[in-house]
Amino acid sequence: MTIASIFTKASKTFHSYPSYSKLLLLCTLSGGGVVAYAELQSDSRPPSVDPNEPRRKRVVVLGTGWAGTSFLKDLDALKYDVQVVSPRNYFAFTPLLPSVTCGTVEARSIVEPVRNIIKKRRGEIKFWEAECVKIDPANKKVFCRSSVDANLVGSGDFSLEYDFLVVATGAQVNTFNTPGVKENCHFLKEVEDAQRIRKSVIDCFEKAILPSLTDEERRTNLHFVVVGGGPTGVEFAAELHDYVQEDLIKLYPTVKDIVKITVIQSGDHILNMFDERISTYAEKKFGRDGIEVQTGCRVVKVTDKDITMKVKSTGEVCLVPHGLIVWSTGIGTLPVVRDFMEQIGQVNRKVLQTDEWLRVSGCESVYAIGDCASIHQRKIMDDISSIFKAADNDNSGTLTVKEFQDVVDDIILRYPQLELYLKSKHMLSVTDLWKDPQGVDREEIDIEGFKLALSHVDSQMKTLPATAQVAAQQGAYLARCFNRLEYCEEHPEGPKRFRESGRHVFRPFQYRHLGQFAPLGGKQAAAELPGDWVSMGHSTQWLWYSVYASKQVSWRTRMLVISDWTRRFIFGRDSSRI
Amino acid sequence: MTIASIFTKASKTFHSYPSYSKLLLLCTLSGGGVVAYAELQSDSRPPSVDPNEPRRKRVVVLGTGWAGTSFLKDLDALKYDVQVVSPRNYFAFTPLLPSVTCGTVEARSIVEPVRNIIKKRRGEIKFWEAECVKIDPANKKVFCRSSVDANLVGSGDFSLEYDFLVVATGAQVNTFNTPGVKENCHFLKEVEDAQRIRKSVIDCFEKAILPSLTDEERRTNLHFVVVGGGPTGVEFAAELHDYVQEDLIKLYPTVKDIVKITVIQSGDHILNMFDERISTYAEKKFGRDGIEVQTGCRVVKVTDKDITMKVKSTGEVCLVPHGLIVWSTGIGTLPVVRDFMEQIGQVNRKVLQTDEWLRVSGCESVYAIGDCASIHQRKIMDDISSIFKAADNDNSGTLTVKEFQDVVDDIILRYPQLELYLKSKHMLSVTDLWKDPQGVDREEIDIEGFKLALSHVDSQMKTLPATAQVAAQQGAYLARCFNRLEYCEEHPEGPKRFRESGRHVFRPFQYRHLGQFAPLGGKQAAAELPGDWVSMGHSTQWLWYSVYASKQVSWRTRMLVISDWTRRFIFGRDSSRI
Ligand SMILES: Cc1cc2nc3c(=O)[nH]c(=O)nc-3n(C[C@H](O)[C@H](O)[C@H](O)COP(=O)(O)OP(=O)(O)OC[C@H]3O[C@@H](n4cnc5c(N)ncnc54)[C@H](O)[C@@H]3O)c2cc1C
Ligand SMILES: Cc1cc2nc3c(=O)[nH]c(=O)nc-3n(C[C@H](O)[C@H](O)[C@H](O)COP(=O)(O)OP(=O)(O)OC[C@H]3O[C@@H](n4cnc5c(N)ncnc54)[C@H](O)[C@@H]3O)c2cc1C
Repeated sequence: MTIASIFTKASKTFHSYPSYSKLLLLCTLSGGGVVAYAELQSDSRPPSVDPNEPRRKRVVVLGTGWAGTSFLKDLDALKYDVQVVSPRNYFAFTPLLPSVTCGTVEARSIVEPVRNIIKKRRGEIKFWEAECVKIDPANKKVFCRSSVDANLVGSGDFSLEYDFLVVATGAQVNTFNTPGVKENCHFLKEVEDAQRIRKSVIDCFEKAILPSLTDEERRTNLHFVVVGGGPTGVEFAAELHDYVQEDLIKLYPTVKDIVKITVIQSGDHILNMFDERISTYAEKKFGRDGIEVQTGCRVVKVTDKDITMKVKSTGEVCLVPHGLIVWSTGIGTLPVVRDFMEQIGQVNRKVLQTDEWLRVSGCESVYAIGDCASIHQRKIMDDISSIFKAADNDNSGTLTVKEFQDVVDDIILRYPQLELYLKSKHMLSVTDLWKDPQGVDREEIDIEGFKLALSHVDSQMKTLPATAQVAAQQGAYLARCFNRLEYCEEHPEGPKRFRESGRHVFRPFQYRHLGQFAPLGGKQAAAELPGDWVSMGHSTQWLWYSVYASKQVSWRTRMLVISDWTRRFIFGRDSSRI
Repeated sequence: MTIASIFTKASKTFHSYPSYSKLLLLCTLSGGGVVAYAELQSDSRPPSVDPNEPRRKRVVVLGTGWAGTSFLKDLDALKYDVQVVSPRNYFAFTPLLPSVTCGTVEARSIVEPVRNIIKKRRGEIKFWEAECVKIDPANKKVFCRSSVDANLVGSGDFSLEYDFLVVATGAQVNTFNTPGVKENCHFLKEVEDAQRIRKSVIDCFEKAILPSLTDEERRTNLHFVVVGGGPTGVEFAAELHDYVQEDLIKLYPTVKDIVKITVIQSGDHILNMFDERISTYAEKKFGRDGIEVQTGCRVVKVTDKDITMKVKSTGEVCLVPHGLIVWSTGIGTLPVVRDFMEQIGQVNRKVLQTDEWLRVSGCESVYAIGDCASIHQRKIMDDISSIFKAADNDNSGTLTVKEFQDVVDDIILRYPQLELYLKSKHMLSVTDLWKDPQGVDREEIDIEGFKLALSHVDSQMKTLPATAQVAAQQGAYLARCFNRLEYCEEHPEGPKRFRESGRHVFRPFQYRHLGQFAPLGGKQAAAELPGDWVSMGHSTQWLWYSVYASKQVSWRTRMLVISDWTRRFIFGRDSSRI
């Protein structure tokens, strides 16, 4: 029994030395080229609960996306009574969703069951597969409903009480109320969306090739339209182009010349949130590939047959027949979050507003992280007098360089825009701010001079983008705060309070931008790296492979993703309609 | 660019020497233990069509299951104008469907796109993803409808004309018109069924664990019922048991003691089409595993809450609450086949009747293979006088041993039950038939004696089971007949015609039974091998792995299936609800 013994032995080895052997396997599989990434090692001793201990505070987490999962991965669950609610019992690695639409990667390779993730944590974390339908901040309760729609017995409605609530429910697709979008467009937000798109692409080909169709009908069915020229839309268009050129035209040779992909973008350029070099490079590449880019056009209506589009510059309206539309134009508010916002007086906003410590403004004990929230960063100019007063140690009415230097670290922690401003002006030290308009160093500065010196700092304030990176960093930050809550109450680690006395308990959340990719198909990608670096071409695609493999949430998904890529290299993508 | 070059090189190598390198890869992956299996090597030169050649005969094939695909894999498509119609654009390896229900193997690993299969053939084969909705044998036409339900332009209705029609549409699930089955049960016939079951199993667990349920409700939701104790039902029950014990109870520890699996079987034993030793072994193993087997019970009604079941022996009726039911009780007729049968006068039958050459009885130029058909084997006693006459060379009114020996090969070809009869009576030679009732050899025999000697032969006639093995052998047989049609018209290769003169053009179809497996979970399987061998236990499971890996339709699916098994050994099965 050779196979038997090999498998049994392998299996045993893996169970006794999981990390080493998995690492070994990964290196073997990946040719050793993948960035090594240390998975969080966790001790799985059962929690020791002392009956005399005071009741642990109840933390309820809503959502298991990037923000929620990252919070759970870092939270010390021995300190709290943790319950997690999410309608999906898995975490999905969204950056690879566009790859799933064309079968470059399988849906299952990018998801990890939440229960697998929490099983590895010390302490008990309860998970309920349910949707939160109402947050009741007055009574510190959330109401939930099971997301299982099968005909099973028992009520799926329940409520949970919390001491702390972490809202990490993400966002939903924004249709801008354009008529017909919900009924006739695909979205690309959930794993199921990607699976549906994959099936529909094949549907378009199978229908177009039937003997009963006219050439015009074939052409319509094979017109793939992407609305939205952001990273997701562009990546999908690129993936689809590769899929068609590398795999599908070999299987459907009679229609190979009539397949068309169009990207409709309301702005003047695609990828306009990236560096200009990247957006130009992408447009050129798409031009060479035959992917049509229609910029400056707004979709005003969609039917099952065509898209009505308005050219912004001329006001001209045109009809575009389509086979499949993928709508990817940004994010909107979930109903449960909208309702919560109305209760706490945050109306007319798209996302929950939090302070710099990620606590929902006006709502003790509720935190919000990820796409459903945005930080309200205080302006330095709003607090300028308090800052001046706090810095002016000797109450002289003027500030010396020394006095300023004493508080500058606290200012930068509290108002990170100051650091960005110094960088943008290429100032190496804060004393450069002390120069008068003629560039001469000053000894002291009064409040008016101080205001003038800092008057442009707030222009560097940025709303954080709705990305996985931000969500993950926020989750990890919040977990760290929760873990150190007791300690930090006694030993505050935050910056000086300028408007009140004392110190803040924690440092405020600070985002570190690690760069962003835009895969462009044809084994090319573009990347914006920290420090204004831009990288484009084949090697960037390999960087993309390494980073995305390394960022996987578990060794399992990492191995699956790598083996999917390998399989694609060898056998191409699958075209079965399942 | 290390990874880049490795991948690119690997990819190139694979494309230049596909078979060698794939073999190498497989051996590496599988630890060399898998039975080597030579994939059909096909020459992909473009077909050379001579305009002066007469029009090639049009062959239309309905269905791309085991029978249809095996026909297409062997058909010489240069000789015919071939069109294939099937609502699914892939071939599915059904024996692994039960493994898909629990994620031991992924759905995509067991399917191969039809277009990939036909691309490898010499000659052009057209494929239409559509359902045949009507066969019109009078006009030699089939009417088809696109199976794409997306909102695409163009009519999906078309018709095809044929010279030869091959019906290989398989069968559908048989509910025996039991009320509530269609609405409340899962079937296990298509890939999508398996995917749905997988999701529903997780649904049951996620719902059962919610805080709002009573213990009774949890118990009901975690009661998994399998109706039908045939190989599919038994294998599903075993797979589910493994999934629950090896993976799910670790993730849902609080409900681990209330999960229950029940198999309801109307016969007295499960697996009653197998050798008795196997069925006893299976029942014992299920007993040890805690899988309840209810034999002698017939389900009379199903609702969303419970199953009504009648105990056959006592007539007692009982209600069984359930969380999920998988209905697996045999096969019924597809509407399109039923309609066709009515047109050709084959009413009141479950499947199409064909002659021993697989041609639909009473219908020139239509062939039927696989689950939708069954061979009407002529009885030897019906033709006994003609046989006697044909054998009686000298018209003496008696048959000598020599005369009989001259035709016995033809008789065995035409009436294979004779060979089975000889085997069952342990007769080494046909002359043993010549013995008189006292066991004394005779020189000659008259018609009455001849009738007596062969009177029990027809008891060995068997209807072939509805299995993949039969379907695949029939497809290959029919392709061979089609390939040799012209040659054999001139050089008939079949047995002597006893009722008329001359020879049959082809040998009739002959089934070779290669054995059958019944996986029983816990890394054990049972197998019935040719020659009345029976094998049970762990080693049989390893035989099962080897055989199923070797039988895959392509190297791609073979690699995927093996890597799925490997992944399961290392990481367990996935429990994400997608
Ligand atoms: C196709 C695509 C590609 C992307 N590519 C990138 C990329 O390359 N790089 C990058 O940085 N970012 C990328 N993003 C953005 C990134 O996915 C999001 O910014 C990130 O997922 C936000 O994390 P989140 O936890 O706030 O929300 P999500 O990850 O969306 O998670 C929300 C969670 O809340 C749950 N939930 C929803 N409603 C409720 C409810 N009522 N009650 C309880 N739970 C609920 C959901 O099930 C989910 O688990 C991409 C997004 C998409 C859609
Ligand atoms: C879960 C399961 C496990 C099994 N395990 C085994 C096993 O271990 N060993 C074994 O030998 N057998 C097994 N079988 C039985 C085996 O799958 C069948 O006997 C075999 O598939 C029959 O082949 P077929 O080609 O006749 O039908 P199928 O394989 O069912 O193929 C029918 C084809 O016809 C197509 N079709 C359907 N309707 C139409 C229409 N109207 N027009 C055109 N095309 C149509 C379908 O899409 C499909 O492509 C199993 C079956 C199941 C369901």
